[in-house]
Amino acid sequence: MKEEPYVSEDEVLGLISKRTVLSEGEDAVRRVLREIYRRGRVGTKDLAYATLLPIPVVAAIRRELERIGLITRRGGAMLTECGRIYAEQALGLKFRGSLLCPSCSGRRIAVEDEFRWMLEKMRVYAEMRPRPYTWLDQAFCTPETSVYRALLMLEEGDVEGREIIFLGDDDLTSVAVGLLRSSRRIVVVDVDERLLSLIGEISRHEGMDIECIRHDLRDPLPEDLRGRFDVVFTDPPYTVQGMSLFVSRGIDALKEGKCMSIYLSYAHKPPDEMLELQRAINEMGLFIRELIPRFNRYEGAEMFANTTFIAKLETTDEAHPLITGRFDGKIYTGEASPKLRLYKCRCGHTISVGVDGDFRTIEDLKSSGCPRCGRKSGFQLVRRIPHRPARG
Amino acid sequence: MKEEPYVSEDEVLGLISKRTVLSEGEDAVRRVLREIYRRGRVGTKDLAYATLLPIPVVAAIRRELERIGLITRRGGAMLTECGRIYAEQALGLKFRGSLLCPSCSGRRIAVEDEFRWMLEKMRVYAEMRPRPYTWLDQAFCTPETSVYRALLMLEEGDVEGREIIFLGDDDLTSVAVGLLRSSRRIVVVDVDERLLSLIGEISRHEGMDIECIRHDLRDPLPEDLRGRFDVVFTDPPYTVQGMSLFVSRGIDALKEGKCMSIYLSYAHKPPDEMLELQRAINEMGLFIRELIPRFNRYEGAEMFANTTFIAKLETTDEAHPLITGRFDGKIYTGEASPKLRLYKCRCGHTISVGVDGDFRTIEDLKSSGCPRCGRKSGFQLVRRIPHRPARG
Repeated sequence: MKEEPYVSEDEVLGLISKRTVLSEGEDAVRRVLREIYRRGRVGTKDLAYATLLPIPVVAAIRRELERIGLITRRGGAMLTECGRIYAEQALGLKFRGSLLCPSCSGRRIAVEDEFRWMLEKMRVYAEMRPRPYTWLDQAFCTPETSVYRALLMLEEGDVEGREIIFLGDDDLTSVAVGLLRSSRRIVVVDVDERLLSLIGEISRHEGMDIECIRHDLRDPLPEDLRGRFDVVFTDPPYTVQGMSLFVSRGIDALKEGKCMSIYLSYAHKPPDEMLELQRAINEMGLFIRELIPRFNRYEGAEMFANTTFIAKLETTDEAHPLITGRFDGKIYTGEASPKLRLYKCRCGHTISVGVDGDFRTIEDLKSSGCPRCGRKSGFQLVRRIPHRPARG
Repeated sequence: MKEEPYVSEDEVLGLISKRTVLSEGEDAVRRVLREIYRRGRVGTKDLAYATLLPIPVVAAIRRELERIGLITRRGGAMLTECGRIYAEQALGLKFRGSLLCPSCSGRRIAVEDEFRWMLEKMRVYAEMRPRPYTWLDQAFCTPETSVYRALLMLEEGDVEGREIIFLGDDDLTSVAVGLLRSSRRIVVVDVDERLLSLIGEISRHEGMDIECIRHDLRDPLPEDLRGRFDVVFTDPPYTVQGMSLFVSRGIDALKEGKCMSIYLSYAHKPPDEMLELQRAINEMGLFIRELIPRFNRYEGAEMFANTTFIAKLETTDEAHPLITGRFDGKIYTGEASPKLRLYKCRCGHTISVGVDGDFRTIEDLKSSGCPRCGRKSGFQLVRRIPHRPARG
C-alpha cells in the first residue's frame, strides 16, 4: 500500500460497489463498514442480518474490503488500523454499539413472563417440523418469531374474538396464536400435507380446534372460506407475484368492511423490488399501518440474511384482489429467476444448483453434502448460468 | 334497559359507528371498548393515543357507549358490569394490559444512560420554543421525541458523516441531531423566522454550526441546496399535498444515488387518506423501509391524538419530485378543509373558529379564553359550517 494516495470516501465505496455489482449501491458498502466499526468484530451472518444484505453479497464486499486492506479476518471481520482511520475520517463514524432497544431487539413487543410458557411450547413444536421444501420457498422461522408474531397480533387486537386465516403456515404461527385460546376460529391453508398433519396433531393434543385445509393457493379459495375472516396472516413466497397472489386470496377471505388486517412477512429486498412490492400493495387498496424491519428471524435462509420484515396491512373501501382466477404465473423465487449456479467444493468437485441442477438449492446441497467428498460446507460460487427458457 | 333483547356484537358496534359517522367504521368502536377493557380506567387523551383516533371522535364514541350503558365515567372511562360482559362475551376479550415493550414503548430505540444528557438539554431548549403558529400546522413534539428521532437516525446510519437537511423544524430535531456532533452538515429550512433565530442561537451557544435558512417551501429550493444532502427530515403539514410538496423538495435536496433516506412524520389518518398518502410516496419513486406507529408525541395536538408515526422512506432509481415549480395549492390542514366551527362556552357564549372566525384554531381559543367569561376549557362543538369559496 506504499505511496498510495489518499483515497476519498466515494472512490472506495464506489469501487467496491461496482466490483460486487450491488443493487443497493455504495450505501451497502458503507453499511458493512459501519457494522464492523460498531461491533468491533463480527461474523458474516451477523453482518448480513445487520445490513439486510444477502450473505453472499456481504461475503463479496468483505473480500473486497480485505483485498484493499481496510479489514482483516480473525474469528470475524475486524477493521485494520487503516480501516479504522478510513471509517472515522472518511466516513465520519464515531459511535459504537447499537441503539436498538435491548429488551425487544427493536420488535416493539416484549415477551413478558406471562407468556414464557408459550416460548417453551413453541420450542418443542418447532423441533417437530419436517425438513423445509425449499422449492416452495419454505424456510422455518425461529420459535421466538412465532411467539412474537402471535403477541404482535394480540397487541393489535387481531386475536381475541377474531376469525383468523393463515395462508401458508410452515412456521406454525397458527399454533402460537391458538395457544392464546382467545380466537373464535383459526384456519390454516397450505399445500404441504406434512405441515397440515403436524398442525392438526398439535391442535388435537392441545385441544385447540385449528382447521387444516389442503389447498394450492394458485387456485381460488374454496367458496366456504371467502368473506369469512377478520384477519389474514401470510409469509408468502418472496416474489412480487407471490405476494400479490397470497394477499389477493387474503382479501377474498376477509369479511366486508375496512380496517381489516393482513399480516405480511417479506424479505428486505433491493430498493426497486421494495417499490414494486409496495405499489402492488397499494394497487390492491391496502395500506401499510406498520412495518417493522428484522421482525422475523430464520435459520438457514441465507439469501435473505436470515431475517424478514413484518408489515401490518389494512384494508380500505377500495380493497380488491389483483388476482382472481387460477394463477399460472411464476411465484416461487426459484421459478422467478431460474438459473443454474455452479459451486466448487474444497475437494475440487463442481456441483450445479438450480431447478435443473444436481441439487435444487444450496440448502439441499449443504444438507446432503458434496457427492464426491461428503463435505457439507465451504462451497464457493464460481458461476451463474442464466436458465434456457423451458419452452419456445 | 329492562326487557332489552340480546344485542349482538355487530349491532352495537354498527349502531355507534353510524351515529358517530366514523371513517374507521365499527373497528374504531371496538378499539375504544378494548382499550377500556385492557386498562380498567382510562382518560380520553390516553384513549385517543391508544386507538389512534382524534380526541373529539373518541369523546363522541364514549358518549354513545355511556348512553347505552356499556361504560361509565369515574375519573376516566370504565366498563359497567354490562360492558364487561359485552366485552368478554360478544367481543371475546380476555387479556388485560399492554404487550408493547415497556423499555422503548414500542419505539424500537432505547435512550441509554449514555444519551440522557441530551434529554436534559432538549427539555431546556424545548421550553424556549415560541408559541406554535397553528395555521402553519405547527405543533410541538415532546423533547423526548426529538431525542428519539435523533437516535433512530443515528441507529440507521443517517447521522455520522452525513449532510442532513430539515425541511421545517418546529420541533428542534436539528438541535438534537446537532448535539450528537457527528454530522458533516446540518441545514434547517423554515418559513418561521422565530424558530430559525432560536435554532441559530442554540447552535451558537453549543458551538454547533447549524445553518438556518428562511424559505417558504411552496417555492422551489434555492439552487445551492439542491443535490447536496444525504438525508432529509421532515414533519410536514398533515395533508397529502403538504407531504407531497415537502417530500418533493426533499428529493430535490438529495444527492444522486439510491438508498438515500427521507424521514417523514405524519398523522395516523383514516384508511382512505393513508392509502392516498402511500400512493403519493410510491409515485415519487420512494418506498417505506420502516414505519413505526406512535413514535412522535405532541402536546396540544388533539386532532391527531397527540401522536404521529415516523416512516423512513428510501429512494430508488426512479425517485423524482411530484411538484417541481412554485406550488400554489392548499397544503395546511386549515386550508385543505376550510370550514368554520361554532363552539359554545359554558357561559353560553358562541365562538366561531376557523380561518374567518373569531379565532383561527381551537388551540388559539383555549389559549386566549372565551371573550365573554375568560374560561379556557369546556368548549363544546355545536356546528360545522362549510366554508364559502374565497373566489369565484
